[in-house]
Amino acid sequence: MNRTRLDETLADLDADGYLLDASQEDANQLYLSGFTGPDPFLTLYADGEVHALVSGLEYGRAKTEATADTVERHADYGYEYGGREDRNDMYAAFVRDKGVESVAMPPRAPVGTADAMRERGVDVAVDGDDLLREVRAVKTDEEVDAIREAQRANEAAMRAAEELLASAAVAGEGASTGGEPADGDLTPGTLLLADGEPLTSERVAEEIEVTLLRHGCALDETIVAGGAQAADPHDRGSGPLRANEAIIVDIFPRSKATRYNADMTRTFCVGEPPAALREWYDLTERALDAALDAVEPGATGGDVHAAACEVYEEAGEPTFRTDPETETGFIHSTGHGIGLDVHESPRLASGGGELEPGHVITVEPGLYDPDVGGVRIEDLVVVTEDGHENLSEYPISFEL
Amino acid sequence: MNRTRLDETLADLDADGYLLDASQEDANQLYLSGFTGPDPFLTLYADGEVHALVSGLEYGRAKTEATADTVERHADYGYEYGGREDRNDMYAAFVRDKGVESVAMPPRAPVGTADAMRERGVDVAVDGDDLLREVRAVKTDEEVDAIREAQRANEAAMRAAEELLASAAVAGEGASTGGEPADGDLTPGTLLLADGEPLTSERVAEEIEVTLLRHGCALDETIVAGGAQAADPHDRGSGPLRANEAIIVDIFPRSKATRYNADMTRTFCVGEPPAALREWYDLTERALDAALDAVEPGATGGDVHAAACEVYEEAGEPTFRTDPETETGFIHSTGHGIGLDVHESPRLASGGGELEPGHVITVEPGLYDPDVGGVRIEDLVVVTEDGHENLSEYPISFEL
Repeated sequence: MNRTRLDETLADLDADGYLLDASQEDANQLYLSGFTGPDPFLTLYADGEVHALVSGLEYGRAKTEATADTVERHADYGYEYGGREDRNDMYAAFVRDKGVESVAMPPRAPVGTADAMRERGVDVAVDGDDLLREVRAVKTDEEVDAIREAQRANEAAMRAAEELLASAAVAGEGASTGGEPADGDLTPGTLLLADGEPLTSERVAEEIEVTLLRHGCALDETIVAGGAQAADPHDRGSGPLRANEAIIVDIFPRSKATRYNADMTRTFCVGEPPAALREWYDLTERALDAALDAVEPGATGGDVHAAACEVYEEAGEPTFRTDPETETGFIHSTGHGIGLDVHESPRLASGGGELEPGHVITVEPGLYDPDVGGVRIEDLVVVTEDGHENLSEYPISFEL
Repeated sequence: MNRTRLDETLADLDADGYLLDASQEDANQLYLSGFTGPDPFLTLYADGEVHALVSGLEYGRAKTEATADTVERHADYGYEYGGREDRNDMYAAFVRDKGVESVAMPPRAPVGTADAMRERGVDVAVDGDDLLREVRAVKTDEEVDAIREAQRANEAAMRAAEELLASAAVAGEGASTGGEPADGDLTPGTLLLADGEPLTSERVAEEIEVTLLRHGCALDETIVAGGAQAADPHDRGSGPLRANEAIIVDIFPRSKATRYNADMTRTFCVGEPPAALREWYDLTERALDAALDAVEPGATGGDVHAAACEVYEEAGEPTFRTDPETETGFIHSTGHGIGLDVHESPRLASGGGELEPGHVITVEPGLYDPDVGGVRIEDLVVVTEDGHENLSEYPISFEL
């Protein structure tokens, strides 16, 4: 945690303190308390100090693990397991004990707690700017190292996926039976086979996830989407994969030890891609390079997004800049910050703010059209004093 | 989803509608919308209908997947990606469009959205009872089947863990070198070895998690805690495991397909357990049986908890009933509901409410003391019309 940045940012608060009520699942909570509590607990920043309040069951672990300056337990406020009102009384007593009469809470803090504080005379303002998120956006060297390490695990998983795809047999090849490309089909390639069975998105995702586990990472979801599925950036992919079409593999693991995330996308094609896909791939590689070239302190997230958009627009592909309603072309932002959350500040999109050294961001242009498929290439970089360092070492290549 | 129960429960609302602003990570949202949106979106229950509002990027998938009666997209309210105020204006317009002037929101709904609705003249009350959680507590047959299926994957993972432990070598056994039990050590057993290396909690957890992935489950954490670590019910366990001490294995996977959770705990001992541990194990098995016997419609969660406590108290072990401050003995509740959340209603604890057919609950008594270790045995059951059905088929045995 960058304590100076935290103190400077929260110094401007129009409140006595900054209050969180969340579990470790909330990145702000994990960052401010330094504690992996599975159930929601309170953390209060006031007068330059961080105070945590946890249940008796968590107290021993929290005393050891939390980076908060003080850790108290429910019993310190005379609370035993009881009703909601007792719990809220305890919360208000904890806040008042720190000399705090007014707090700011992040926009997604629980309304139940906010209203309960208000009923007990503690002013609650919503911090619409989510200031802690902005503090989190600029990483320390230690945080960058944690993300770098997660990216190494990510690369091992990508390698496992690529090898599984590369080793797949193509149905009908060298055999008398087998599928023929169907005319007018959106996914005209023949089936990929592994061990004589159709190779599915699910099978590739399983290989990725097992590899991540073996490398100390957890994850919720992985995208392995081929053909028309790849044309929907949020489709996780399912069912048989085919030759001669684009297969998007997007992996975003979280290190179990540090809880920092990594993120990487590659697009593969087993066999010969149609000319349109080949062109899209080359264009997307150029968009990636142009966007990466634009990443430096003082440039804005908007500048980086514009650099990617320009490559696509010059080639006649639609973007949200040329057509806000388009459902094909470059239909998402160029990237996002990453850290304890997979998606955090800053945004590489129109209106995205100024980049600072320590920002860790994805750069991930892509093109989408159900009639062609989808292509996305995503690297992970950290903004440095004089440009950026690319944290991704995985090669960029299309045909397997 | 039990639509009748939903309608009946929300009919008593003192508001025109029930509003959620959450992603799929929120069980209420997943339940009411039936949509696995990765980013927060709105769902409104009003006049017996469920309405979802999602971004353009999610719209296609939401139309297909969501069980909501209507699905709209941001563009339907003229919203393009913009600032927070524009977004809140859209949210208010969506709510008003359904003829709703007042909403209830669950206690952990975001205060930013609640306050924004209030500023726009929509009354917001906090539903302190979290009524949707209560609706979710009673499962349909389909939901019970989803949990049962996740428990089968859980059992495969428990088997993998048990086999790994059972096949471990004990350091020094049959060899001239090796550790001797240290006098006065909290974990006096000699090291367990796998492939010549100390067998660690992390290694066993990895085996469990890989097995779960191979069975279509995801998971965040697993508890494999031996010796003194097993005496802290929230300790996930780390480092070398030893012979002649209790090793608690607690697995709670989530099916990727259905998103329903399962939960099971077994306690193992490689080699001969000390007499005190053996006694604890037998006692805990009796506490489990007593608690299971008490599970039937009309009994309360408090009754089931009391049945487990009585077994322990008669044997002279402390519980929260005999000593609310105790840090050893039976120091947690007897169980909890499970479904889309790992922990949900009802509670098997003092004050826990009446059990109903369709409640799926864990029953998990245990004993803890850093000087002895920890023992916990956990089954998963569904309350039926005339008692309960045990959804766990895994044997209960201690010594490996």
